[in-house]
Amino acid sequence: MEISRDHPRYRSLVVRERMSELVRQGVVAPTGLIAHGRGEAFDYMLGERTTGTAANAEKTAAAWLLEARRPVITVNGNAAGLCADGLLSLARAVPARVEVNLFHRSPERVEKVVSYLESRGGKDVLGRVQSSRLEGIASDRAMCCTEGIYEADVVLIPLEDGDRAGALVKAGKTVLAIDLNPLSRTSLESHVTVVDELTRAVPSIERTVLELKDDAEERKRLIAEFDNAENLRLSREAMCLRLKVQGSGF
Amino acid sequence: MEISRDHPRYRSLVVRERMSELVRQGVVAPTGLIAHGRGEAFDYMLGERTTGTAANAEKTAAAWLLEARRPVITVNGNAAGLCADGLLSLARAVPARVEVNLFHRSPERVEKVVSYLESRGGKDVLGRVQSSRLEGIASDRAMCCTEGIYEADVVLIPLEDGDRAGALVKAGKTVLAIDLNPLSRTSLESHVTVVDELTRAVPSIERTVLELKDDAEERKRLIAEFDNAENLRLSREAMCLRLKVQGSGF
Repeated sequence: MEISRDHPRYRSLVVRERMSELVRQGVVAPTGLIAHGRGEAFDYMLGERTTGTAANAEKTAAAWLLEARRPVITVNGNAAGLCADGLLSLARAVPARVEVNLFHRSPERVEKVVSYLESRGGKDVLGRVQSSRLEGIASDRAMCCTEGIYEADVVLIPLEDGDRAGALVKAGKTVLAIDLNPLSRTSLESHVTVVDELTRAVPSIERTVLELKDDAEERKRLIAEFDNAENLRLSREAMCLRLKVQGSGF
Repeated sequence: MEISRDHPRYRSLVVRERMSELVRQGVVAPTGLIAHGRGEAFDYMLGERTTGTAANAEKTAAAWLLEARRPVITVNGNAAGLCADGLLSLARAVPARVEVNLFHRSPERVEKVVSYLESRGGKDVLGRVQSSRLEGIASDRAMCCTEGIYEADVVLIPLEDGDRAGALVKAGKTVLAIDLNPLSRTSLESHVTVVDELTRAVPSIERTVLELKDDAEERKRLIAEFDNAENLRLSREAMCLRLKVQGSGF
């Protein structure tokens, strides 16, 4: 479908069409489109920008990734569809392992997403073989890679389901989420929640990773001073502000 | 995919899977799933209930449909997927013509949606033949049925795009929208905006249609006293309230 560059929502429409195309290719699940829509709504209420509190959360997430001994970035269909290049670049910068982990898991879909990441330059992408099992979650959603999520101490989970976020926290890992919904279970349960749009958040985290590589003191300060409850409260407040101002149309 | 009845979001998940299935059947467009997700987010912030102001808007929409000489209800893929039976029942109650009108129009998709409505008992459903053109909108989105939208004086437009809502208003019609986003162009441009979830709104409008059939005085009162700007403001306020109260997770 041809989208007029004049359309006031041109960029959103282009992303939507691309996500639809990735559904046809089997990378994004159909219900992933629904999740994408939810994110669009929350992002609109954020004002489609990185808030001050999200910027701070991004720096803190970067600090955690650098402090980690075994950092892992999980990637599902939506994250791959929206931000494959950015996530792979961030993984190389830390460095961190990348593991493909899907809500609607099937060998075919895992293969599609892993291959897609490899086609974007991903090396040693985990996901095809998942031999370990997380506790406290339905078995079809519990499988993960031994040398990935299972052995990780810090996990970055973009666009993840609440059940899995909770299971990772219970398993004793430090959980860094990227989630536009400040009310979601994922947001509430994670240790650091970046309430920002994925393609804004990921490059921002990478920039700080590069800045803080040799600054252990600043990393520790960021981690010590971070308060996720306050971060979520400020994110919700930012959305409220937007609701009070009459929009020009979405 | 089997969804556990224990999952805290069981009902939402069932609807999402059904919408995904209707995409596979060609009734719902893939980008329609994204729109559905946006609605989910806004509905969550409404508290997934009919607010007082939405209830009043529903009554006012019913009054307008009864006052109309040529009322028409437009149906797109999402509206059909979510609420075909309810919309057909409302149309019979008024009575109003039903016209299928799609954002992603193709003869195949129009046929799918019209056939779907017919399979749910729809009679004289318009949409296969669109000979008239609305002004002020890109030509592929301007086509409509002569004896439907084109000649209508009052149009109920569930889940409609802002461009088309605006074109209908410019064409001099009274536009009644059902839209969960109180900031959208559709919401701002329509004369009556029902900020409520479709499957709650439609039966509510039908109930009032049956109640007000013989009460011209009450219909006129509702119409005279309705203030859409105030209605939208109260809807935004309801969402703000929800953001301020920490959710148990979405």
